[in-house]
Amino acid sequence: MIYLDNAATSFEKPNIVKQAVNEALEKYTANPGRSAHNHSIDVAIKVFEARERVKQFFNAESEERVVFTPNCTTALNYTIFGSIKEGGHVITTAFEHNSVLRPLFELQRQRKIDLTILYPDKDGYFLPESFEKSIKKNTYMIIVNHISNVTGTIQKIGEIGAICKKYNLLYIVDAAQSAGHKKIDMQADNIDILCFAGHKGTFGICGSGAMVCSNKVILKPHMFGGTGAFSAEVLPQVTFPESFECGTVSTIPIISLSEGINYVANNFGAIQQKLDTLTDYLIEKIENLPIQKLYYKNNCHGVLSFNFENIDSGYVGDILNEKYDICVRTGLHCAPLVHQYFDTIEQGAVRVSIGYFNSKEDIDALYDALTDIYKSSAIKKY
Amino acid sequence: MIYLDNAATSFEKPNIVKQAVNEALEKYTANPGRSAHNHSIDVAIKVFEARERVKQFFNAESEERVVFTPNCTTALNYTIFGSIKEGGHVITTAFEHNSVLRPLFELQRQRKIDLTILYPDKDGYFLPESFEKSIKKNTYMIIVNHISNVTGTIQKIGEIGAICKKYNLLYIVDAAQSAGHKKIDMQADNIDILCFAGHKGTFGICGSGAMVCSNKVILKPHMFGGTGAFSAEVLPQVTFPESFECGTVSTIPIISLSEGINYVANNFGAIQQKLDTLTDYLIEKIENLPIQKLYYKNNCHGVLSFNFENIDSGYVGDILNEKYDICVRTGLHCAPLVHQYFDTIEQGAVRVSIGYFNSKEDIDALYDALTDIYKSSAIKKY
Repeated sequence: MIYLDNAATSFEKPNIVKQAVNEALEKYTANPGRSAHNHSIDVAIKVFEARERVKQFFNAESEERVVFTPNCTTALNYTIFGSIKEGGHVITTAFEHNSVLRPLFELQRQRKIDLTILYPDKDGYFLPESFEKSIKKNTYMIIVNHISNVTGTIQKIGEIGAICKKYNLLYIVDAAQSAGHKKIDMQADNIDILCFAGHKGTFGICGSGAMVCSNKVILKPHMFGGTGAFSAEVLPQVTFPESFECGTVSTIPIISLSEGINYVANNFGAIQQKLDTLTDYLIEKIENLPIQKLYYKNNCHGVLSFNFENIDSGYVGDILNEKYDICVRTGLHCAPLVHQYFDTIEQGAVRVSIGYFNSKEDIDALYDALTDIYKSSAIKKY
Repeated sequence: MIYLDNAATSFEKPNIVKQAVNEALEKYTANPGRSAHNHSIDVAIKVFEARERVKQFFNAESEERVVFTPNCTTALNYTIFGSIKEGGHVITTAFEHNSVLRPLFELQRQRKIDLTILYPDKDGYFLPESFEKSIKKNTYMIIVNHISNVTGTIQKIGEIGAICKKYNLLYIVDAAQSAGHKKIDMQADNIDILCFAGHKGTFGICGSGAMVCSNKVILKPHMFGGTGAFSAEVLPQVTFPESFECGTVSTIPIISLSEGINYVANNFGAIQQKLDTLTDYLIEKIENLPIQKLYYKNNCHGVLSFNFENIDSGYVGDILNEKYDICVRTGLHCAPLVHQYFDTIEQGAVRVSIGYFNSKEDIDALYDALTDIYKSSAIKKY
């Protein structure tokens, strides 16, 4: 099997992550919480260690503001619904995932917010000046994805952050595709809330993710329940991280993320170099094929999408899967505005996404398979 | 270690659950989803199998209406926020957990609902007739916990369900403490939405839970994002389970719950008998001690709480932990109205909760430790 679907989740997890899950299954299955027994405290210590590692990796301001969530979508929902300013204005981009677009469109539908969606320049960038030009009196938030899950475009999050700082806007970065792949420094980039999935570039298992907030962020909880704190009050004050982690936390997914992010931190130079090299190699190879590009050659990292003429992307994906055991993802990738922009809303696109455990040989195999497919009678029949 | 904190989570998981997690770490780490590659479909099949098992175990109406959530609190939030009828009236009980009370009180604070909280009779029951008497013209929902996480009282959920059916009210059962311990038949009991934690009586790992809906339930999503369906639409129609499982689902926790519930289904007779026997034995022993009871001798299952005179519950818990390596949970157990009712809001209580892997010897050890503690100078000093 050749796995090129890392943007959905990283298939292979480092051994250290698997070992940590196994250890946790034996030792860390109690429920963490305050004023409790040793076995519970043992788990609470592991969860706190996870907060410290996440804080350090992204240069966040404090461990308490690392909120663990079951996935990036939950983190983004908590962020968007928790920070609503009714009658306010939000700026985002056409390259966002549905986990950003759908909450924002829902708020727009409820007439709670006004929304501006920016479109990219010829290199796939959303320019800082285009954000600046769109700012209105009632703008309170800018949300940007760091790396697109369709095109692999990388946004200049530091420059956009500087605009947010200048205008005192809440700045949200969706790092689903970039966390663990690209350096993110929350303080240097002026990021107020960073949302990421734990099971992609940071090698946790599915069920892990986080919302990391700066100290200045004021957020209303989107869900309510037991937090282990203020148990006597039915309408307690908001505290980080408890108010945003109500109910039993996903201890084993959190522990897996903790080990995964530690692994990434210890191998970050090699990971970045590998992804840079493989992205370049992938582009070099794939550009030999007669494809429609859903990516920007000079602004691409780890992910890209393409089509052969008007051939349904799912059809190409199925052949790659069945005949070559190559895993890619086809369709719309939950990012409808990207596909509207490229006029591929019907066709979708074939998405290739690489990870640290891929090799040049994987890309060669993909290239050979795509060449075969394009030349084959299979595609002629279509 | 003697683990008597099963109401927080079951510490020991059956080997079959651990094996399933191990297998999943190697084989089922792709992201499930539609129109995808074999490895993704393999995971989707496992997730669907989990839905079938949950459906069957609780006699739900359809697999599609089994919505996996990261915990019971999320299931209850989805239920309560998703079913709001503004200006409507909800009836619940003083024995609910904060995962029910806090969302309801938040809605009351927002003046969206009117709330009635019932108090128990002398045996800890919330009588069907007391619900019936509280029904108003605008009542739309009744929420009841099946087994209290403090007192272990069991409610007659079928009888309350009959009232809900008669008055066409939405009927929600919080089965956090009962799922896997007591038989629940959603159709016979007229339950519209059953919420449970996967990591307690059903032996999944933390990070698993579910909201199981009847076919008649109409619910608005509380979170929005990618669902793998209707990707082209930013305001898609509501579908089960996709609209309530947006983002990447917690595959390994779901697989663990699937194996756990299968284990429970295959051993249900033995589990019920063991819990009945151990509950009786626990009560028999503990009643020899000079305690304040936060339970009802003739209406108790698996969980009970108590205090020694005015001694802080945390203090007793600490001694049990440090001197005897016995794990219990002390404090308020996220159920403030129970403690208001028993006038233990300051003191909290010592909670003992048993599971299938406990033995009479565990209870003997607890009894001996408590006898020791009560007689010891430690407690005299207090």
